[in-house]
Amino acid sequence: MEYFVEDHPYAPLIPIKKKLFDEKSKYQYIEIYETKHLGNMLVLDGAVQTTEKDDFIYHEMITYPALAISKKSDDILIIGGGDGGVAREILRFNKHANIELVEIDEKVIEVSKRFLPEVASALDRINVIIDDGIEFVKKSNKRRDIIIIDSTDPTPYAEGLFSREFYEYAHKLSSILVTQTESPISDRKVHLKTIDNMKRVFKYVYTYLACIPTYPGSIFSFSIGMDKELREIKDIDVKTRYYSKERFLLSMDDFTKWVME
Amino acid sequence: MEYFVEDHPYAPLIPIKKKLFDEKSKYQYIEIYETKHLGNMLVLDGAVQTTEKDDFIYHEMITYPALAISKKSDDILIIGGGDGGVAREILRFNKHANIELVEIDEKVIEVSKRFLPEVASALDRINVIIDDGIEFVKKSNKRRDIIIIDSTDPTPYAEGLFSREFYEYAHKLSSILVTQTESPISDRKVHLKTIDNMKRVFKYVYTYLACIPTYPGSIFSFSIGMDKELREIKDIDVKTRYYSKERFLLSMDDFTKWVME
Repeated sequence: MEYFVEDHPYAPLIPIKKKLFDEKSKYQYIEIYETKHLGNMLVLDGAVQTTEKDDFIYHEMITYPALAISKKSDDILIIGGGDGGVAREILRFNKHANIELVEIDEKVIEVSKRFLPEVASALDRINVIIDDGIEFVKKSNKRRDIIIIDSTDPTPYAEGLFSREFYEYAHKLSSILVTQTESPISDRKVHLKTIDNMKRVFKYVYTYLACIPTYPGSIFSFSIGMDKELREIKDIDVKTRYYSKERFLLSMDDFTKWVME
Repeated sequence: MEYFVEDHPYAPLIPIKKKLFDEKSKYQYIEIYETKHLGNMLVLDGAVQTTEKDDFIYHEMITYPALAISKKSDDILIIGGGDGGVAREILRFNKHANIELVEIDEKVIEVSKRFLPEVASALDRINVIIDDGIEFVKKSNKRRDIIIIDSTDPTPYAEGLFSREFYEYAHKLSSILVTQTESPISDRKVHLKTIDNMKRVFKYVYTYLACIPTYPGSIFSFSIGMDKELREIKDIDVKTRYYSKERFLLSMDDFTKWVME
């Protein structure tokens, strides 16, 4: 059997049929594989980003907790997220949301539309801006209801998105920010450091987990920075497959057990 | 970095320091590795069984749901489970339980005591029987409160433990049986076939999931066969790290979403 496997601790052997695409963009090496069981898979700089079959786990879990916590979801800024999965989930929840998506790499958008059409389905219905997310946030002064950072691993061009400085700029635009905070199993140092950076900016930081079989370590984390304490979690009127209020609450409990030991 | 990796779809690259032991027993090839982050790891015929660090996920999840459902836990039969983890969890819940553990391979017990002493800590406090679990169940006629099948993958010598015939013999001894039913991601066929076999014997079969980062596919399943419908789930007066009544209930919901699609 032929496998794709990241050069990373705890990365899984993912059975593939063939490579459909590869190209070096200005920022990264982009690959698309046809997998045996999971549909097409997007890989950036050798790291699995999403597959057609399991994208819902990541995209539901980075999106719905913030939507369920925030009073408003009319203006949402996505940094990264060029595959479109986050935007798609937001529009399922609030079809009138004004979504700006700031992706540094135009090629990721083009490739996602071509090879992951279902994931990318919302990209034509939102405001896509090709720009460096850090520069965009620095120069913006419009308030948003939520900011979602859907970044790759902290590769050189994405590293700034995990910094305290970036969170400080973002915090000026929104009192709720959610970001992926890597796996506590396979990227423990980045995971802990990122949460620490968030805690220096936001008064409350809630970290929660999801089980994503295609990511190294499979137990993956997200964190929400907030100005207020987490109290109300609204019911989401969307048919989800992984996210539920109960799973979200339970996965915050998981975290302390696993990571703090 | 040096990795151990199973020759299996979705198996993770597990960083290791060195091999501590290997020997071909009468039944299988037994290896012990010192891992980088997870303590010592037991490998049978190339398949990861448990690590000192994450053994609690598997052992709590194969043990506590049945203990929480069963009215009684005085007489419990374990088939397999030579590393001792299941017996340890039962004794934490009921220190007066009469536990018989039927392991086919004496060498697994010896190696577990030597290299996984915390996992194996209960082995000196229970009735360990070296025998073929299938033959043992066929010739036994003593009723038990619970039977737990803690088997390896269906390798030639373990295959019978996944068969309808075996469940029929076991059912004569107990109205509650729990077994690992493999990963719906990486062993989908065996997973579905085993559950089907159970359903031909037990009136009710409840399948639930756990996230085990060291197993191929990471999403792993267990199933409980019962004569009566699942109603009451007792509170467990044991400090657990992964198992909770809520996680057990939620993980049955997971299953339908993932596997039945």
